[in-house]
Amino acid sequence: MVPEEMKSTEEKAGKRGRGLVIVYTGQGKGKTTAALGMLLRAWGRDMKVVMLQFMKSATSNYGEHRAARRLGIEMVALGAGFTWHTKVPDKGRSLAVELWEKAREKITSGDYHLVVLDEFSYPIKYGWVPAGVVLQTLRERPSWVHVAITGRDMPAELIDFADIVTDMAEVKHAFTEGIKAQPGIEF
Amino acid sequence: MVPEEMKSTEEKAGKRGRGLVIVYTGQGKGKTTAALGMLLRAWGRDMKVVMLQFMKSATSNYGEHRAARRLGIEMVALGAGFTWHTKVPDKGRSLAVELWEKAREKITSGDYHLVVLDEFSYPIKYGWVPAGVVLQTLRERPSWVHVAITGRDMPAELIDFADIVTDMAEVKHAFTEGIKAQPGIEF
Repeated sequence: MVPEEMKSTEEKAGKRGRGLVIVYTGQGKGKTTAALGMLLRAWGRDMKVVMLQFMKSATSNYGEHRAARRLGIEMVALGAGFTWHTKVPDKGRSLAVELWEKAREKITSGDYHLVVLDEFSYPIKYGWVPAGVVLQTLRERPSWVHVAITGRDMPAELIDFADIVTDMAEVKHAFTEGIKAQPGIEF
Repeated sequence: MVPEEMKSTEEKAGKRGRGLVIVYTGQGKGKTTAALGMLLRAWGRDMKVVMLQFMKSATSNYGEHRAARRLGIEMVALGAGFTWHTKVPDKGRSLAVELWEKAREKITSGDYHLVVLDEFSYPIKYGWVPAGVVLQTLRERPSWVHVAITGRDMPAELIDFADIVTDMAEVKHAFTEGIKAQPGIEF
């Protein structure tokens, strides 16, 4: 909730504001979901947005992919999945490196108002993408580019660099009580 | 992230799953934003969704309202705002009661797959809407109806009743460093 008086003058003037780095981390639900909400808000304001998903596979067809297609929002999933990264680490690494190169291009191009790096903590944590390179890219990006990064166990360097960091803690979760994930809600 | 094997059979069969009560609370950013992400996902799966906003005023025209209009997603803001509730508590109360009646109808109708009650912790906390009535409505709702509730200081009764509860903690926030809220990102 943002009070009326906090509406930025940039918006009224149609100018681009200051780009923020936003991190959603923690063990609870809602990290990717919040990033999707940001996409929706920004899209609602005619901003150019993209989401790059580092762990979901290219064949994913979850609620967010279906919505993105209909909205014309660019969403690229290029991961080997959580269950595979330990079995085929080389595959996980090469996909992550490929997607990060794409992400870096998009961030530095200045063509986007918002770039979401979904589940991006993992490729860094696994040592597939060096934190230093990520930081340098964020530091040198055009001033108006917002970057949102989600994932558990976010590297400390990214938390230090970010403007806004939210930790989502799991207070309670029905899955632990044997209730299945529900389509359209969880994925 | 939901692994492939967690995809529900209901979805494949086109049936309605089990409705969940999902709470996003805590002092950090991302509560309303995550609820927006849920709306987007569910909308992507052709589910019928609605968001009722208890604190934003009817004239709000944030990113989410603009997006919702374009998507044909029902979104009703009917609040007196955070800055006003202490000055004109009677107005806040009457608006909240009116919107809750609307919410109750929508939840019990069974016409919706997902009903979001945004910033709904406040009307309960202020004593405008009794927690007992809310619980009864949730308990008696059609089995497939998901209800998501956001807001700080969520009453314990709702946390106890919910299936999934995420607490969003503010680790860091740029606004405390004098950076303005950015349109399309924060609102």
